[in-house]
Amino acid sequence: MAPVYDNDNVFAKILRGEIPCYKVYEDEIALAFLDIMPRIDGHTLVIPKFPARTLLDADADKLSELVKRVQKVARAVKDSLGAEGLTLLQSNESAGGQVIFHLHFHLLPRWEGIDLKPPASQMESPEVLEKFQTRIAMALK
Amino acid sequence: MAPVYDNDNVFAKILRGEIPCYKVYEDEIALAFLDIMPRIDGHTLVIPKFPARTLLDADADKLSELVKRVQKVARAVKDSLGAEGLTLLQSNESAGGQVIFHLHFHLLPRWEGIDLKPPASQMESPEVLEKFQTRIAMALK
Repeated sequence: MAPVYDNDNVFAKILRGEIPCYKVYEDEIALAFLDIMPRIDGHTLVIPKFPARTLLDADADKLSELVKRVQKVARAVKDSLGAEGLTLLQSNESAGGQVIFHLHFHLLPRWEGIDLKPPASQMESPEVLEKFQTRIAMALK
Repeated sequence: MAPVYDNDNVFAKILRGEIPCYKVYEDEIALAFLDIMPRIDGHTLVIPKFPARTLLDADADKLSELVKRVQKVARAVKDSLGAEGLTLLQSNESAGGQVIFHLHFHLLPRWEGIDLKPPASQMESPEVLEKFQTRIAMALK
């Protein structure tokens, strides 16, 4: 049996406003915010407002709407930071690399010669996070 | 200026039938087939039939339809191979890890304790590819 959605995961708490985030975009379908332990400058997460544990259990029609937001935020992340490329990563279940069990897409802006850090290696400073938040959010206005 | 779509990329040739592939799924929107240099057993690619260089330049409405196929194939890959998880990876531009410039989603079935190989490390044998092709394609019938 597939595991069920847990309402007490960290992203559910962010969606309910119980935990703050460095928000860059929000609409009726999705919320996008910075990863506070970025694997690279500007590392952004896009999550659905609807409950879904992974890509696999998400409602297909809602997922269709969500991916438009993933694309929109991806363009803004890449363009606003002058990135040369972008890597999208989406992990399902612990074996797949998932740590927080609310569906999320990692948007990783990329530059030639700059490798990704390992996941969750270091907490970023509020000053740096606010700088990237402002730049990405501006591009999404 | 953003680079334009190149009709001579390998996946365009696969779509035109000029190069064979280990197909596991096809409909009017998408084609899914095995990566012949898999990073893990069952490594599958989902590509659109419409021309798109990256996630960023794809038509948003067409991308919405495509992601339903990504989900459908992802479920089949995970379930048919008895995987414990699944990692989705999608690379944009060389700096983002892209090698073939036709939009594609990597579906990587995952098991605890088994790491992904580096990209394009080794060509898999036809026998092994055919074995996984059969199992995944059956789950998509």
